[in-house]
Amino acid sequence: MNGKMKAALKVEAAPGATVALVDIPTIGSRDVLVQVKAASICGTDMHIYDWDAWAQSRVQTPRIFGHEFAGEVVEAGHEVVELVPGDFVAAETHITCGHCYQCRTGQAHVCRNVQILGVDRDGAFAEYIAIPESVAWKTGKEIDHSVASIQEPFGNAVHATYEGEIAQRTVAVYGCGPIGLWAVGLSRISGASTIFAIEPNHKRLDMATAMGATCAINPREVDPVQRILDITGGLGVDVVLEMSGHPGAIRQGFKSLRYGGRVSLLGLPSSMIELDLANDIIFKGATVLGISGRNIFDTWYRTRRILESGQLDLKQVITHTLPFERIHDAMEIMKSGDCGKIVMTF
Amino acid sequence: MNGKMKAALKVEAAPGATVALVDIPTIGSRDVLVQVKAASICGTDMHIYDWDAWAQSRVQTPRIFGHEFAGEVVEAGHEVVELVPGDFVAAETHITCGHCYQCRTGQAHVCRNVQILGVDRDGAFAEYIAIPESVAWKTGKEIDHSVASIQEPFGNAVHATYEGEIAQRTVAVYGCGPIGLWAVGLSRISGASTIFAIEPNHKRLDMATAMGATCAINPREVDPVQRILDITGGLGVDVVLEMSGHPGAIRQGFKSLRYGGRVSLLGLPSSMIELDLANDIIFKGATVLGISGRNIFDTWYRTRRILESGQLDLKQVITHTLPFERIHDAMEIMKSGDCGKIVMTF
Amino acid sequence: MNGKMKAALKVEAAPGATVALVDIPTIGSRDVLVQVKAASICGTDMHIYDWDAWAQSRVQTPRIFGHEFAGEVVEAGHEVVELVPGDFVAAETHITCGHCYQCRTGQAHVCRNVQILGVDRDGAFAEYIAIPESVAWKTGKEIDHSVASIQEPFGNAVHATYEGEIAQRTVAVYGCGPIGLWAVGLSRISGASTIFAIEPNHKRLDMATAMGATCAINPREVDPVQRILDITGGLGVDVVLEMSGHPGAIRQGFKSLRYGGRVSLLGLPSSMIELDLANDIIFKGATVLGISGRNIFDTWYRTRRILESGQLDLKQVITHTLPFERIHDAMEIMKSGDCGKIVMTF
Amino acid sequence: MNGKMKAALKVEAAPGATVALVDIPTIGSRDVLVQVKAASICGTDMHIYDWDAWAQSRVQTPRIFGHEFAGEVVEAGHEVVELVPGDFVAAETHITCGHCYQCRTGQAHVCRNVQILGVDRDGAFAEYIAIPESVAWKTGKEIDHSVASIQEPFGNAVHATYEGEIAQRTVAVYGCGPIGLWAVGLSRISGASTIFAIEPNHKRLDMATAMGATCAINPREVDPVQRILDITGGLGVDVVLEMSGHPGAIRQGFKSLRYGGRVSLLGLPSSMIELDLANDIIFKGATVLGISGRNIFDTWYRTRRILESGQLDLKQVITHTLPFERIHDAMEIMKSGDCGKIVMTF
Repeated sequence: MNGKMKAALKVEAAPGATVALVDIPTIGSRDVLVQVKAASICGTDMHIYDWDAWAQSRVQTPRIFGHEFAGEVVEAGHEVVELVPGDFVAAETHITCGHCYQCRTGQAHVCRNVQILGVDRDGAFAEYIAIPESVAWKTGKEIDHSVASIQEPFGNAVHATYEGEIAQRTVAVYGCGPIGLWAVGLSRISGASTIFAIEPNHKRLDMATAMGATCAINPREVDPVQRILDITGGLGVDVVLEMSGHPGAIRQGFKSLRYGGRVSLLGLPSSMIELDLANDIIFKGATVLGISGRNIFDTWYRTRRILESGQLDLKQVITHTLPFERIHDAMEIMKSGDCGKIVMTF
Repeated sequence: MNGKMKAALKVEAAPGATVALVDIPTIGSRDVLVQVKAASICGTDMHIYDWDAWAQSRVQTPRIFGHEFAGEVVEAGHEVVELVPGDFVAAETHITCGHCYQCRTGQAHVCRNVQILGVDRDGAFAEYIAIPESVAWKTGKEIDHSVASIQEPFGNAVHATYEGEIAQRTVAVYGCGPIGLWAVGLSRISGASTIFAIEPNHKRLDMATAMGATCAINPREVDPVQRILDITGGLGVDVVLEMSGHPGAIRQGFKSLRYGGRVSLLGLPSSMIELDLANDIIFKGATVLGISGRNIFDTWYRTRRILESGQLDLKQVITHTLPFERIHDAMEIMKSGDCGKIVMTF
Repeated sequence: MNGKMKAALKVEAAPGATVALVDIPTIGSRDVLVQVKAASICGTDMHIYDWDAWAQSRVQTPRIFGHEFAGEVVEAGHEVVELVPGDFVAAETHITCGHCYQCRTGQAHVCRNVQILGVDRDGAFAEYIAIPESVAWKTGKEIDHSVASIQEPFGNAVHATYEGEIAQRTVAVYGCGPIGLWAVGLSRISGASTIFAIEPNHKRLDMATAMGATCAINPREVDPVQRILDITGGLGVDVVLEMSGHPGAIRQGFKSLRYGGRVSLLGLPSSMIELDLANDIIFKGATVLGISGRNIFDTWYRTRRILESGQLDLKQVITHTLPFERIHDAMEIMKSGDCGKIVMTF
Repeated sequence: MNGKMKAALKVEAAPGATVALVDIPTIGSRDVLVQVKAASICGTDMHIYDWDAWAQSRVQTPRIFGHEFAGEVVEAGHEVVELVPGDFVAAETHITCGHCYQCRTGQAHVCRNVQILGVDRDGAFAEYIAIPESVAWKTGKEIDHSVASIQEPFGNAVHATYEGEIAQRTVAVYGCGPIGLWAVGLSRISGASTIFAIEPNHKRLDMATAMGATCAINPREVDPVQRILDITGGLGVDVVLEMSGHPGAIRQGFKSLRYGGRVSLLGLPSSMIELDLANDIIFKGATVLGISGRNIFDTWYRTRRILESGQLDLKQVITHTLPFERIHDAMEIMKSGDCGKIVMTF
């Protein structure tokens, strides 16, 4: 397909972004061209927008950013096997190499040569995006565009929550941004018996309750460790899902964990963090799991089944839907923290 | 049994220990009285001897300390089921409650109400010790007394090493005190393909090579992270067994781990420690396991089979054997660090 | 406690049972005497009642049978630690030895020296039963007596269902007696995305739908294998929970399993059974798990949490409640198969 | 490459094979052409040679059969990424689709659309074979050609042995053809404490002892179940590796398994087989695993490390090496059963 399209670009190595007309990308023989219908905003996008230290070290300009999206296939390379124009897809945004030790042993989510859409190559904040067929994820056309676009970050929650037992376990979710909120919901639909949600923002905490938290704790008002110990009879929780990246929350997470429990770490601390390894991990016999990306593609199959069976309404977490042209407004809302997921439509 | 026995006591809340005559302990209906034949010295004993902050907070005086031992049953309470005088035993030193959540769900090694021999009740640096039958571990009479006494600390190595796959995995053991040395040996007999031993003391490093390390690294001379990456083709090791408790070594351990690898943390840092959670655990998709005590009693069955089949010569790690009366000398040798395991005989 | 009580006895080695007055059992120092409030009937009880080949080989007379029950502690031996008269309890009916390899390595549910209540020693079809404190399971007094008594068989369903992943998995439950019905319910509350129930009795099949089955199949009317393959797009189910013990159903279970799936076998075939190991297990890369009893006591903690959180209404499965004196009627109803669980009250 | 090559063909649907000149295969853009240096014979090849019922139902003629091989890359398609002419390779013989549920969730070894070399497309009993780069497994040029060619069947043993714990476990290997013999060796190098080998052929049984079996049992002379129970103190073995496919051996395997043990089933029974599910799997709480193919590619990485570290001498299992032209003789030797692995050279 020839022609121009609107896209949100990092034109140069500086904060901000530019909405401009650029060439519609060309596709290789195993790629598909997707007309973007909805794209949601990730914390990573905000780092790129703000051009923080991480973005400066990783992203080369010019670059179309954005990676959470869904849209319609409008063109397919001649070696594409399963997709045809008209198919509706989202995408696994980690393009894995397929050759490294991790890829060849079932751990592609930590591929050593990963290329990330919207970070290492052009992304989804645009009218069209070219992606390899291998990362396209066919999605039912009956699925709402916004919901389809948020399957990717939802997958992070799926990955973090299910890396251990949940049914009849007590769970504490630290940090109730979109991923934390979904983790609350996933815990609920999978039989967790008690679900603590810990979050300083009142709106998000209310959303956590709506998602199924049985005990919502604002850590500015109540000590979550004490509350959790009180409610669990001094035992602590079986599972901590750390979604905040906040040093204090991470330490509280460990303190509220029961001996022999499991911590899934997903939230990214922005710097080194002090931990009491002896008391919080070693004597406790804890299992600590680093959670990166999604299990490719088990996470996506689970997500599909959740959508098809209607187990969880992912949309509850979307608080704002704006036209793509208002990307700057969207970024401002993100920064305020007074939101769940923000979706842009095209 | 009535009468007096020699014992090493913490008489009062101060550094040091006193060898004195005290009453032979009386036994309850489900206890056995064991005549100690050999007792080895643990780092914990040194903390008690030195009366450090931890010891002050935990140990009440007077207290006979010491917990790694083996000996002969000389008396059995009337409800003892399986043991009779003449049996040779070692002991699991964690007397677990049997009632807590952890005990009742197969995680007794992190029992919430554990009583530790030689810490919370009188221990093994004495001619006799009374223990519940439930922690006594029958040992073949053909087993050397010294070897029988070190089954307990050896069990820590067994627990740490086998909490994940070892066969054809690359392993890095940080810290080559006795437990680290055994971990090297266990990795070797279980099919690890490459075994790195990292240890600043030259004698211990030589012992690690004798135990089967394929690459011995003195971190004062060579950067272990770089060396490990070089030898593993940039991949890093599949498994890190952290036996040092040293902050720098712990951080190096994480840096030398491959994406998707496993870390068993056993060495106890003496204070809080800074970690790069984002890069070393989260993005890496690492699994971090706190290792406390021994799996009760799977670890002991494994140990029995290792001894019976002659897979590993535990004795290689014993560098000093002294009569019990020389406990002060033994403590001095321990402090020098120029030793493997020290065993006292009775 | 002295005196007489009513009990259902196998007086002699022949079919049937006698309700008679016998001595109230005396208790040992670590036992409790429980006044039975409700006792439910297990298939095993029917085998004993009918005096089939298995019963003849295992049960010695005279014997009070019955093992699923709940009641009030009325007397406690002097070494009982946690229970006091007035406590309400159910019981794990497998009295494990605590000494065998399995007991000492976290597999007490397959203890080699197990004694089963109501089979190897006197059971619960009586006004009072003496049990070791170690198998008593404290239950909230607010729990309905009938529900408390069925925790034991419910635990079989818990054990079978949770020996592998359930969330977002497709599950087929073969055989919808009480345990199968609960397995359907447990699958539902734990996030299974599709739940097939296969059962020839229409009443039971309707109950399965009420418990949450998304597709109820009467194998006399529809081929369950074909139906399952159709609905799963030819893939087969991730999980088969075999609760029938019926040879044909077992073979259908394997045929309806997807490549790489899991089968939990709980239903007991009465004789040898022919299987196509090559196609149904080996080429399929299947995992087949024998399910015996309950995980002691993880299963019970899960059950407690299900009751406390109200996740599942166990009572839905109870179709008949009769006074204990009508045990013969109860047995007749059991034999008809036209029932869920039958509970006798005292 | 143009020209003719010698190949062993099934020219028509009848027993036997024809050595003839055929066209050297042409390669696609992602294929490599490999000059075969060594090819070993699998039981599957004998089924094809003999044209048994399975072969008739699966194999279309004309077909070059054979799939265990190693050789030198002589030509690479223009989209081949990692291989160049001169590389020495073996191959995973299961060409998986990459698109099915199993392939996309880490279970490619049970791919639903697998194409097997030498079965579903032309194989390795020829001077040249064309294979997709995706199944080529680079092998060190220093590795003996014969050893390189048997990596594939060796991988079956790796897969079966390591699907559960081996270190300090007792293992019984039923059937000591090449895969069984390697399973004995793998058990030994991975720390199994007792290794039973059960095999009626004396030569093979002697080879099992040479590979490390600690107790060799000829089931025509001694009852293996009784012997195993005697030596394990009545417990039974922790692990059964079933490599025979023989109904009697399979049943003995289950009877010799301890309560709570694991069975890996690899040997293929030729028809339905009667099992005592109640006693041998259900009451026993056994875990039964169907083993098909190799874990792709974890098994291969393990194999590489075994070869590189010299942990096991795979060659011990090779009893005959013949020039390819003597394929008919090789098949006769195979049928006699008086052999380990047979390798043909080119």
